[in-house]
Amino acid sequence: MSAPVVVKVGGSEGIDLDSVCDDVAALWQEGVSVVLVHGGSAETNRISAQLGVPPRFVTSPSGHQSRYTDRATLEVFEMVYCGKVNKGIVERLQARGVNAVGLSGIDGRLFEGSFKGTVRSVEDGRVLLLRGDHTGTVERVNTALLELLLGAGYLPVLTPPAISHEGVAMNVDGDRAAAAVAVGLGAAALLLLSNVPGLLRAFPDESSLVAHIAAADSDAAQQFAHGRMKKKVMGAVAAVQGGVGRVVLGDARVAQPVRRALAGRGTVVA
Amino acid sequence: MSAPVVVKVGGSEGIDLDSVCDDVAALWQEGVSVVLVHGGSAETNRISAQLGVPPRFVTSPSGHQSRYTDRATLEVFEMVYCGKVNKGIVERLQARGVNAVGLSGIDGRLFEGSFKGTVRSVEDGRVLLLRGDHTGTVERVNTALLELLLGAGYLPVLTPPAISHEGVAMNVDGDRAAAAVAVGLGAAALLLLSNVPGLLRAFPDESSLVAHIAAADSDAAQQFAHGRMKKKVMGAVAAVQGGVGRVVLGDARVAQPVRRALAGRGTVVA
Repeated sequence: MSAPVVVKVGGSEGIDLDSVCDDVAALWQEGVSVVLVHGGSAETNRISAQLGVPPRFVTSPSGHQSRYTDRATLEVFEMVYCGKVNKGIVERLQARGVNAVGLSGIDGRLFEGSFKGTVRSVEDGRVLLLRGDHTGTVERVNTALLELLLGAGYLPVLTPPAISHEGVAMNVDGDRAAAAVAVGLGAAALLLLSNVPGLLRAFPDESSLVAHIAAADSDAAQQFAHGRMKKKVMGAVAAVQGGVGRVVLGDARVAQPVRRALAGRGTVVA
Repeated sequence: MSAPVVVKVGGSEGIDLDSVCDDVAALWQEGVSVVLVHGGSAETNRISAQLGVPPRFVTSPSGHQSRYTDRATLEVFEMVYCGKVNKGIVERLQARGVNAVGLSGIDGRLFEGSFKGTVRSVEDGRVLLLRGDHTGTVERVNTALLELLLGAGYLPVLTPPAISHEGVAMNVDGDRAAAAVAVGLGAAALLLLSNVPGLLRAFPDESSLVAHIAAADSDAAQQFAHGRMKKKVMGAVAAVQGGVGRVVLGDARVAQPVRRALAGRGTVVA
């Protein structure tokens, strides 16, 4: 089996899942092995609000923004990521002739890690400790299960949440989970696709695309990153350091988003 | 690998998923191979109403009641069955030390069948033809994928929807899907657990339990069945006719619901 391409497609507004699935299906049918990882944040925010569990975001002392995930939020998160979005992508791939299998990080302990339970949040200049946060970090990927499925001809479609060592579901960053999958599988490439063309020197000016960043100098790589892009750059740097050959931050709003990123359109991290 | 036990647990009010998972985990750890199939109807009705897509049920000319599943309903159905309920069960099993993997019938074309698209509904004495119904019948189970997972030590946790031959997601009856799984795998037993003790001679009088019905005489078997129980009896009869050794309609509201049903507590179909 050739080394797979790991494609992460975000869950922000504007992303064209039909084009992503067109492209993934065409590549798969040409014999390229693919693992797809996806998000679902915009839809989760909408459904959360409708269900009376409005999303709450916290900003850490180091400036990272993340979703505060209490148990009720986790269940909405699972409904959207594992239900609506995951099965929607699997259905699109099946309709295109690809035998996709959708799994969360809980299933088969695909994404396993440490559960924090608390999160530090900066509010009005003070640092608060919030409890009950179902959030963690992926430390281990069950690559044996992915290889079992790929070897039998199934395309894995993966999504957070992950599972703690103790067996508790927890939200994790999808970009960093995708990077861990790519490193674990010895992937040929990791493509992190979202609703921007790549890393922008002057966000949100799309003409300010940074064509190349050096993983060896991650401070320099991070200097232009805002919000969600910080974790994408962290994931990309980790993938390069873990030996993934081609790492690209690309655009998921366009036709042939996977081929374009594979060809280096976007921000190449090396 | 020994012939598995297929356990179907319904999604009605009163069902104790913790007890089902306690029992399944204990059996699994004793070396009994298990496939779990679940429903989620009560929770789907609640979430549908909250999301402004209230559930709609239709009664066929032959008297079967079923959910009318337009695209919006299908997406809520997927959120609840594949997201909240499936991942909740997988998490419970993982916390009990069982490496469970949750899949819908779309994944790997586990449950494949024919898409009807229309449903006949009796309303005010007239038969209406409703279009846009994402409902079908399971005709083929991907037993190879289930055997691949079981052989590698994973406990499959399965849920509707299924997928049409053309690759469209569709609602199917979970009891009949579970029966198809049991027949396909050559299961040692099929246990259909719900929020009643079994088939009742005088529903809802729980003291009127029918201890035994003969699959060979399915008209007699159906004579006491009401509502959802009709499809359970159909599934049970199909499983017996398909060679499944032990088929029991049992109670999922009690402690040790799986062991009790395996021991013949409930309605034994033979």
